[in-house]
Amino acid sequence: MLIVHKYGGTSVGSLERIENVASRVAKAKSEGNDVVVVVSAMSGETNKLIAYANHFSATPSKREMDMLLSSGERVTAALLAIALKENGVDAIAMTGRQAGIKTDNAHMYARIESIDASAMQHEIALGKVVVVAGFQGITEDGSVSTLGRGGSDLSAVAIAGALNADACEIYSDVDGIYTTDPRIESKAKKMDFISYDEMLELASLGAKVLQNRSVELAKKLKVKIVAKSSFSDAEGTIIGEEEEGMEAVLVSGIALDRNQARVTIREVSDRPGIAAEIFTKLADEQINVDMIIQNASSAGMTNLGFTIPQSELAGAKAVIEAFDHDIGGMDLDDSVCKVSVVGVGMKSHAGVAATAFSALARENINIEMISTSEIKISMIIAEKYAELAVRTLHSVYNLDK
Amino acid sequence: MLIVHKYGGTSVGSLERIENVASRVAKAKSEGNDVVVVVSAMSGETNKLIAYANHFSATPSKREMDMLLSSGERVTAALLAIALKENGVDAIAMTGRQAGIKTDNAHMYARIESIDASAMQHEIALGKVVVVAGFQGITEDGSVSTLGRGGSDLSAVAIAGALNADACEIYSDVDGIYTTDPRIESKAKKMDFISYDEMLELASLGAKVLQNRSVELAKKLKVKIVAKSSFSDAEGTIIGEEEEGMEAVLVSGIALDRNQARVTIREVSDRPGIAAEIFTKLADEQINVDMIIQNASSAGMTNLGFTIPQSELAGAKAVIEAFDHDIGGMDLDDSVCKVSVVGVGMKSHAGVAATAFSALARENINIEMISTSEIKISMIIAEKYAELAVRTLHSVYNLDK
Repeated sequence: MLIVHKYGGTSVGSLERIENVASRVAKAKSEGNDVVVVVSAMSGETNKLIAYANHFSATPSKREMDMLLSSGERVTAALLAIALKENGVDAIAMTGRQAGIKTDNAHMYARIESIDASAMQHEIALGKVVVVAGFQGITEDGSVSTLGRGGSDLSAVAIAGALNADACEIYSDVDGIYTTDPRIESKAKKMDFISYDEMLELASLGAKVLQNRSVELAKKLKVKIVAKSSFSDAEGTIIGEEEEGMEAVLVSGIALDRNQARVTIREVSDRPGIAAEIFTKLADEQINVDMIIQNASSAGMTNLGFTIPQSELAGAKAVIEAFDHDIGGMDLDDSVCKVSVVGVGMKSHAGVAATAFSALARENINIEMISTSEIKISMIIAEKYAELAVRTLHSVYNLDK
Repeated sequence: MLIVHKYGGTSVGSLERIENVASRVAKAKSEGNDVVVVVSAMSGETNKLIAYANHFSATPSKREMDMLLSSGERVTAALLAIALKENGVDAIAMTGRQAGIKTDNAHMYARIESIDASAMQHEIALGKVVVVAGFQGITEDGSVSTLGRGGSDLSAVAIAGALNADACEIYSDVDGIYTTDPRIESKAKKMDFISYDEMLELASLGAKVLQNRSVELAKKLKVKIVAKSSFSDAEGTIIGEEEEGMEAVLVSGIALDRNQARVTIREVSDRPGIAAEIFTKLADEQINVDMIIQNASSAGMTNLGFTIPQSELAGAKAVIEAFDHDIGGMDLDDSVCKVSVVGVGMKSHAGVAATAFSALARENINIEMISTSEIKISMIIAEKYAELAVRTLHSVYNLDK
């Protein structure tokens, strides 16, 4: 098997931990696998370098930031290759450039355009473990580029795709994806498997484990991800293609997003296109509108409700106030949260939503807004009920069994 | 004018000092010059990274060490470019690769083979200050290479040569080259000018300022070096071609090397080639023999005396003991030092050596060994007389005037 391992900043956060990683890689190699390892910078390094740059400038040049920030992963890659060789495992460290990773010119959040995997393949064929500095690539003009926060996950998935690897194992300090946040519901269970689509909907459950962009890329490239802990031998969670014939799990998990605010605009006038104007303006200000509900009300006037991240509330308020002659007024509420029920089984099963609604009703939790997709039901409720709602839903769908 | 600035680790040892460097570069640019800046890693960084690597291995792979160690200079280059831009000076940071520096494959002590200066020239033509990460280049197969300790000096001189720059200003925490070590002789004077050849002979006086390999390269490429302090506006010392017609200074400086040990092999047998055999064996063991004196003695036997660095004394002893049937015995003395008088004027003036010998004789300092070159007289004396000898010679050649 050809396996890509990816180790995050915490997993390589000290020399001792890098040694631990070397042992894990050596073990995988000794079991007969070909192994490519993608590493992040040692935890704290990237933030230190950002602080350095911000000492000089609040808006440092992005091209130079990429040259600066890419150094941390290079250090880890070189150290891990040295540690592997000392363990008797032949290894070679590669920068993003040497690994053939080409990106566009969008410094600090570059997109991978192509991977020329021939250099990696050459070294693999020689029996070497290839250790790649994650998070980085090279632009067409030869500048160093980085892929944005969590970009090493993206490097690992893209490399696994380019090498047609059997799996991409993403190691962190968490041993997999849970049915809900174990800090809220101690009965939360680690999942053995979750589909790409469910994982994308459950982003908040995987936030510490996996960058969302990398799940999207894995889905596109059909790369099987395994989320594992570098501090234990637990099995981890497979994130993969939903298999035909496999009986779909009705509900996979319950996600909670506390960073929600609700905006209600009252008595929006019936001038055509006014809602569209408001949302265009919000988009111009980079305000991410999530759920939207429009209620027909009396006398041709409507109420318009939507949710945004709490941090964008002030910006949204300013935008809406500019429309004051077209609206009756607005209400802002930042004491709400979003609870989501996710499962591919919803596609083919009726009644999943009804189960959620009645379970919350039994606890006297009022649902303020609802939005649904094929595999998700999201509900806006008062923030004070967040934990109760998560536990109630976790239990009603038998996730603790 | 096109000027290359090079700032060593102490000069960029903190964020404040990098800011200071940015001001100096901005000033040089504002005076109408084109400026290329070569930087070292922040002081302490390279040693930290070496310690990291040695945590894993006493003999870490040289290729991976180069990937590791080259990261420090990249950080400084990126930060300085960011600082310059914030000062309103357009700048671009370049790695060794981006600056076109190609080396051989001797990782950790690579030699520069060629510089393709076109990328630097392109940016200079756009009016930008080019900030190059020193100490590094790239091998033919695309691996990162480093040039050995002090290699950033070498980068700067090589770049100045490739760009046909008007000067290569090497900044450190010392403001130039002195006639002798000011810690020994407080009357030591900073020189305005010193020739390449003198500088090479006075290596110990420039040890904190300039790497010797870079003086050799500057001589070869005819690059004018100016050794200056990054902490003052003092003029510095020019290291350049000895000019025709310029009246050569008789004696430029007095150097002291305390790291000397003297080996005397008594009664070397007259078997042909025995001395050559001993020296070949010493060379095989990487023992650097400096001065050699062979005295014909009675009955066809000779005494053979030579000096080596003190740290290599044990190794030399082992080598020589293997010849015990060919020699009468050996004496080892590590309480000696070497005092050197250097000056291009010696070429054309007689009596310079005689002045030194009689000055030391007046102080009752016995000269144990002597070696001379066209522009240097070196003398081995007892270590206890080191300071006295330096002050005596400094005075007798009027260097304090």
